[in-house]
Amino acid sequence: MNRTHTNGELRLTDLGKTVTLSGWVAKKRDLGGLVFIDLRDRYGITQLAFNPDSPLYSQTLDIKSEYVLEITGTVIERSSKNPQLPTGDIEVDVASLTVLNKAKLPPLLIQDETDALENTRLKYRYLDLRRPVLQENFIVRHKTVQAVREFLNNEDFLDVETPILTKSTPEGARDYLVPSRLNEGKFYALPQSPQIFKQLLMVAGFEKYYQIAKCFRDEDLRSDRQPEFTQIDIEMSFMSQEDVLDVSERMIKYVMKKVKGIDLTEPFPRMTYNQAMNKYGVDKPDTRFDMKLVNITQLAAETTFGVFTNNIENGGIVKGITVKNGAELYSRKGIDKLTDFVKKLRAKGLAFVKLIDGELSGSIVKFFTDEQQQELISLAELEDNDLFLIVSDKAEVVHQSLGLLRNHIAKEQQLVDPEEYDFLWVIDWPMFEYRDEHQRYFSLHHPFTMVQETDIPLLDTAPDKALAYCYDLVVQGQELGGGSIRIHREDIQNKVFDILGISKEEQQQKFGFLLDALQYGTPPHGGIAFGLDRLIMLLVHTENIRDVVAFPKTNSGQCLLTEAPGIVSEEQLTELAIKTIK
Amino acid sequence: MNRTHTNGELRLTDLGKTVTLSGWVAKKRDLGGLVFIDLRDRYGITQLAFNPDSPLYSQTLDIKSEYVLEITGTVIERSSKNPQLPTGDIEVDVASLTVLNKAKLPPLLIQDETDALENTRLKYRYLDLRRPVLQENFIVRHKTVQAVREFLNNEDFLDVETPILTKSTPEGARDYLVPSRLNEGKFYALPQSPQIFKQLLMVAGFEKYYQIAKCFRDEDLRSDRQPEFTQIDIEMSFMSQEDVLDVSERMIKYVMKKVKGIDLTEPFPRMTYNQAMNKYGVDKPDTRFDMKLVNITQLAAETTFGVFTNNIENGGIVKGITVKNGAELYSRKGIDKLTDFVKKLRAKGLAFVKLIDGELSGSIVKFFTDEQQQELISLAELEDNDLFLIVSDKAEVVHQSLGLLRNHIAKEQQLVDPEEYDFLWVIDWPMFEYRDEHQRYFSLHHPFTMVQETDIPLLDTAPDKALAYCYDLVVQGQELGGGSIRIHREDIQNKVFDILGISKEEQQQKFGFLLDALQYGTPPHGGIAFGLDRLIMLLVHTENIRDVVAFPKTNSGQCLLTEAPGIVSEEQLTELAIKTIK
Repeated sequence: MNRTHTNGELRLTDLGKTVTLSGWVAKKRDLGGLVFIDLRDRYGITQLAFNPDSPLYSQTLDIKSEYVLEITGTVIERSSKNPQLPTGDIEVDVASLTVLNKAKLPPLLIQDETDALENTRLKYRYLDLRRPVLQENFIVRHKTVQAVREFLNNEDFLDVETPILTKSTPEGARDYLVPSRLNEGKFYALPQSPQIFKQLLMVAGFEKYYQIAKCFRDEDLRSDRQPEFTQIDIEMSFMSQEDVLDVSERMIKYVMKKVKGIDLTEPFPRMTYNQAMNKYGVDKPDTRFDMKLVNITQLAAETTFGVFTNNIENGGIVKGITVKNGAELYSRKGIDKLTDFVKKLRAKGLAFVKLIDGELSGSIVKFFTDEQQQELISLAELEDNDLFLIVSDKAEVVHQSLGLLRNHIAKEQQLVDPEEYDFLWVIDWPMFEYRDEHQRYFSLHHPFTMVQETDIPLLDTAPDKALAYCYDLVVQGQELGGGSIRIHREDIQNKVFDILGISKEEQQQKFGFLLDALQYGTPPHGGIAFGLDRLIMLLVHTENIRDVVAFPKTNSGQCLLTEAPGIVSEEQLTELAIKTIK
Repeated sequence: MNRTHTNGELRLTDLGKTVTLSGWVAKKRDLGGLVFIDLRDRYGITQLAFNPDSPLYSQTLDIKSEYVLEITGTVIERSSKNPQLPTGDIEVDVASLTVLNKAKLPPLLIQDETDALENTRLKYRYLDLRRPVLQENFIVRHKTVQAVREFLNNEDFLDVETPILTKSTPEGARDYLVPSRLNEGKFYALPQSPQIFKQLLMVAGFEKYYQIAKCFRDEDLRSDRQPEFTQIDIEMSFMSQEDVLDVSERMIKYVMKKVKGIDLTEPFPRMTYNQAMNKYGVDKPDTRFDMKLVNITQLAAETTFGVFTNNIENGGIVKGITVKNGAELYSRKGIDKLTDFVKKLRAKGLAFVKLIDGELSGSIVKFFTDEQQQELISLAELEDNDLFLIVSDKAEVVHQSLGLLRNHIAKEQQLVDPEEYDFLWVIDWPMFEYRDEHQRYFSLHHPFTMVQETDIPLLDTAPDKALAYCYDLVVQGQELGGGSIRIHREDIQNKVFDILGISKEEQQQKFGFLLDALQYGTPPHGGIAFGLDRLIMLLVHTENIRDVVAFPKTNSGQCLLTEAPGIVSEEQLTELAIKTIK
């Protein structure tokens, strides 16, 4: 066990040195007695050479892929260099060889591109993780948390651990439960986030808290959602929204510089929630490409197209997006597919016009006068060969369907650069949204979110118009983080609970200890949380969360490697005073 | 929200500056119109002064302890300085005052010494945590994890997260279970340690892993045990025991220097497991004081004292410890108490002799000849006024009872300095211990522990004599960390399972995936884990783990603040396909 160098380290400057290396056999080639082995470790690959007349030659005959070797030899210059490899100028002329361990034929190819099924990769995760491309993801993950911690430590934040065995909160997502043996019939819950605890730490006077925290939600799983996930959790006292945004922005810039070498010197742009919805249809706009939503409601109301005019009379709106060169890119069939896409998002249909040789075409054109057609061309900034896609519906449906259609087309037409990080703050979120189906207000963020100073009077007169100190950090059309300034005043907290229709009794039962805490000198405070898994996915360019989690679960919540979850004994259940029901 | 300074920061050099401060009212004194307020934050205390003729005077009348204030004023020199306080030379002449929040009368005194019951402190944990002495514990904890990470990052370790939702392992302590909604009738378990995952990361070629990892054991709780605890978890490939000890030792030295400013330059002493048991009676000796176990078996065998001779004939041993000045320190009644102490540890009794004015006294002296008495004085190195306490029993009972009695007396007589850190490696642990009651061998560490190279043949001939590559780091009589080199060879793993009497079927069922992994090129590897909570307890000198955990549970596993664990709804249980049994 005395390796002198890693397999990514040796260069021409090391010629003549006697070195000892360890690692795995990535590849072996036997050119009629002249044997080459690529030895791999976490740091790279070094080529080992075995002379045809070497006494080691016979030993190499048994060596297969993934054997673990330790070798000693001399660094020599390669006759045919490999410019793809950092160590490609040299090889090691092996003088002694020890097989530290053997390996069976692996059930998957251990290289960046593997054709194994994902289930095979997950069952043999320890082999899948040997693939350099995956190891690199975890090195990026390591560097990222290291950079985050460096930054926050320097800013005087305290890293404080909050409990994993905590209490079930009836709001939010579904909890994972843990039966308590010492308290029969009672259950702990795994935390959906450390929200309540970080607020209590502010009440406790910790002033600046952070934690890279495991969180748990028992929701149905997807390629970007695991039962347990990790967030960079931050809370600060005596700070305004501006302070939280400032620290967060500097942290993200620090990480991007440290991990990717990218200098983000400009301030992140800001957009209000309303601007985002109106121009991009979604609260997390991808601003790497244009194709903004164009409001043609006023124009549409003047046309003779009944679908438009009826909708507008019923309070609906009409908006569209301009697809550059779309007349060429999308045939009738292509547009049918886009129509199917928006129909799944509750839109009743997708109208369109094309501008070809200066002429508008499409079945709805006949409802527009010449003048209206010119206005449409002007509003939508149509140029020759452009396509304009239109949805007419309730605002909510128009925004969601066109917003997602916009992202869909950008992806389909490869309009986005994965290396462009368009960080963007979405601010000025409403405090509440009224849900018709429940006939009451709901918090857009959570019930502890502070109303903007100037909007406090609106809590009494028009709660739906009140804006919150609430903010999301968006990048590449995804929410990377979000947070708010919290309510520290008991009178405002009570008012917000009243608006949400939460009775005193319910308040006490659900949030009693937090309301108690408010009465003992709670400082003004606020915070933010960033999704670490998502951040790493963005940095390494993957859409599969399993590429950035060491031991992930399948979409049915199983670990194929350890076979978790598993059957447990009756004794275990009896001790916990529970039983399973069929 | 524009504080310019913290409350620990201002000095005479700041005289004349206009400053804005925030914080909590720690104390208010009204000297007939001249009002002083001690303003507290995480950083310290600053005295605020309100002039009797200040228009703010009337405002101060309403201010009570724990109100949250923001003030602006001028730094002036104090007339009566307070040398106890870093800011004691100055005060702030307040020009403007905002009450950011009010506070009810707190149910506990918010200062280092509080007389509140622990249950009150836990229910109002957010107030308890305001006490500067507790905040300081969490600052030490923060600095410690920061130092650990700095060190390990610099040594090229990768911080990798392992899962919290994992599989129940039938060995070890009791698991916390989590019912799976997506896999009815099956359960996840919370990890007792990341042991298996860190070994799999070595199989995966990560080479150097660490994690500050949450672990869970559903055991009965004590003042030094919480349901969830944190360990510094480390694993390395291509490394020997010597390498693991080296990295660990340098890490501990780095932490002691960074956190406590203590230079530990000498190598940590090493002791074999057998030396520790023979000389200290325990596997985690406190070496801050002497009082080693003296073996008088040979001498005792020659006496006429039947208790000794019968015991020795039955294979037992006789050992004692010398209490310096014990003849004065312990009366007959005092010795009775010590006897009760060892009886609880299964010893049948405690014999003793005292040396007073050159004469041995005690009821057993008559069974010793003059020569034997002289030999006893010599063996036990007795000086005038010393007490020698003797246990005669099976080796196991002698060692345990005298070992713990030794610690008990040291504590009672205050022989130990809490600032002396006597780090010590205990090495060369046996692979197995034979348990008569089960009539089979058990692993002393765990079944993946590697046998020492030279002892491999002993696995076939005398397993109980085989030593392991296994090591504990001990300090102040406590195990701070422990680990081992793991078995990477399938043939040795099979042999160890055979010795432990674990059938092939059982092996496959319990450790199948780890045994599979051994066949695909597992590198030599080993590691160690340190108890973080215990380390912090040592650094801040507390014996109560709740002083170093932000939101701890009581001994019955309850969080008195959030009232976890709690009752959950029938719907939640039904979704999880479980029910409680009464």
